[in-house]
Amino acid sequence: MDLSVLSDLALDRLMYGISLGAVAMMAAAGVLEAGRKCFDLFGMVVVALAAALGGGSLRDVLLDRPVFWVADQTYLIAALIAAMLTFFLARIFALPARLFLIPDAAGLALFTISGTKAALAWGAPWLVASFMGVITGVVGGILRDVLCNEEPLVFQGTLYATAAWAGALVFLGLMTVEIDPGQAAVAGGALIFLLRVAAIRWDIALPRFTSRL
Amino acid sequence: MDLSVLSDLALDRLMYGISLGAVAMMAAAGVLEAGRKCFDLFGMVVVALAAALGGGSLRDVLLDRPVFWVADQTYLIAALIAAMLTFFLARIFALPARLFLIPDAAGLALFTISGTKAALAWGAPWLVASFMGVITGVVGGILRDVLCNEEPLVFQGTLYATAAWAGALVFLGLMTVEIDPGQAAVAGGALIFLLRVAAIRWDIALPRFTSRL
Amino acid sequence: MDLSVLSDLALDRLMYGISLGAVAMMAAAGVLEAGRKCFDLFGMVVVALAAALGGGSLRDVLLDRPVFWVADQTYLIAALIAAMLTFFLARIFALPARLFLIPDAAGLALFTISGTKAALAWGAPWLVASFMGVITGVVGGILRDVLCNEEPLVFQGTLYATAAWAGALVFLGLMTVEIDPGQAAVAGGALIFLLRVAAIRWDIALPRFTSRL
Repeated sequence: MDLSVLSDLALDRLMYGISLGAVAMMAAAGVLEAGRKCFDLFGMVVVALAAALGGGSLRDVLLDRPVFWVADQTYLIAALIAAMLTFFLARIFALPARLFLIPDAAGLALFTISGTKAALAWGAPWLVASFMGVITGVVGGILRDVLCNEEPLVFQGTLYATAAWAGALVFLGLMTVEIDPGQAAVAGGALIFLLRVAAIRWDIALPRFTSRL
Repeated sequence: MDLSVLSDLALDRLMYGISLGAVAMMAAAGVLEAGRKCFDLFGMVVVALAAALGGGSLRDVLLDRPVFWVADQTYLIAALIAAMLTFFLARIFALPARLFLIPDAAGLALFTISGTKAALAWGAPWLVASFMGVITGVVGGILRDVLCNEEPLVFQGTLYATAAWAGALVFLGLMTVEIDPGQAAVAGGALIFLLRVAAIRWDIALPRFTSRL
Repeated sequence: MDLSVLSDLALDRLMYGISLGAVAMMAAAGVLEAGRKCFDLFGMVVVALAAALGGGSLRDVLLDRPVFWVADQTYLIAALIAAMLTFFLARIFALPARLFLIPDAAGLALFTISGTKAALAWGAPWLVASFMGVITGVVGGILRDVLCNEEPLVFQGTLYATAAWAGALVFLGLMTVEIDPGQAAVAGGALIFLLRVAAIRWDIALPRFTSRL
């Protein structure tokens, strides 16, 4: 994708739109997860909001920045509408859980890169910045599973946070060799997305820990 | 209740006292919940403090205000004394769990309205403010249940957070039509309390989500 | 131990080194805990980081100070290296879980005293300061257990947080009688360490709560 055809303003708007979309997708995935546990409507809304807003909130609190959805309630509205829509659609249609895996991978890529960027802009050292990216990408899913009283899936399934970390590190590495930040972001994000999709497709996982305790 | 007979100072003092009482009640309810899981004395104190102070702490951290019980340790002392008293009373008398439902409903009403007010005063947009009110009211109970390794009851039982949200929205709505803030607060709080009591009495619940996944 | 032989700078360096060691030990203990649940490599790293950094992060967020490992990424690196080393060592050797009890007790002592100190320096009232010390010492272990979907061990086992609280209060008490802060810190820390070791050795526990509900 040649991003140089886009003006800076248009790129910002595109990123904002994608970011609202990612929040909405994460909220929808939260509703489907909570649905399996027979929560009531409000319970699902809470789980959906935690899944959609939790990672970015923790990043902003740790960095001592204004929390993104408090400063701009559009994110909160997007998450609420997506949660409600999914709730009612799931009562009518049989929505396959796997339907959300592709947008979820896109959301992971975008959240991770934007989280890394935000931490860098605040002046965090590189390792902290990459870790903030991973937090932005994965903490929502961890919160969702803890609220549903399950062992977080992100710890046990195919490559997820590892893909996020790899992409964040590639993004940071490309920045140090003075590549255009926009292109570095696209490269890092694409790596996350492709690693994640490949991991789902071919069931790639990290080694399990078999303790001899 | 005609609040105009009260001076502003007297009203502030009344609110402070009620607020300390709400913290104490939530702490007592936390002890009774933890007791069912056979935690030790300290475990119960932690669960009680999380239940009593968790919601307001999360609100203050998200809004980047000073955390209320760090700024004024009276809240911490009230929660500790209430937890200890409940611990020893419960070893002597059989305290029925339902005993706490009425003060808990009053606590929910007060926490929600005061949380909404605090967020508005900080300049949060209205939807964020109403959501901060709900966080203040219900997060303590969610934390209590997560620490006790149970699926949060607030997600599954009768109207709870929904009542809080309705009251917060009524409070905000009355403020926009330029009603006196004190009266709007009383109306919103009363609605929360009455909805919650009615929900307990007649077992009113939101529709469950029956996923077809 | 006669601390007066150490210059202030040397004491600060010693504290910093011990503090990095405590972070590393807590990370190692997190890996061993996560290993029992068959998490993958990343899952264990997250649990290890939560165990090592969680308490201090919550303290810093509640006090509205810069989060310690964001400001100085040496802590993050120490935790990561310790987690990786433990992961690979545990695949080769049978590491007994009890191996970590002594350094864990030392970590609890150091985290509690440094947390109490940091809160005092920020101007927190004494009860809040002691509670911040306990948070710094025990929240990491609570997070670790919640992420592993277990009832937090700290609530059920032998004296743990109670030892931390006692030490923090002794430290604060000695400060009010104008003893040298360094000596007060050593006395408080030593009390925590000894109480904890004694509790493990002779299985000392707080009374359980047997509710008659």
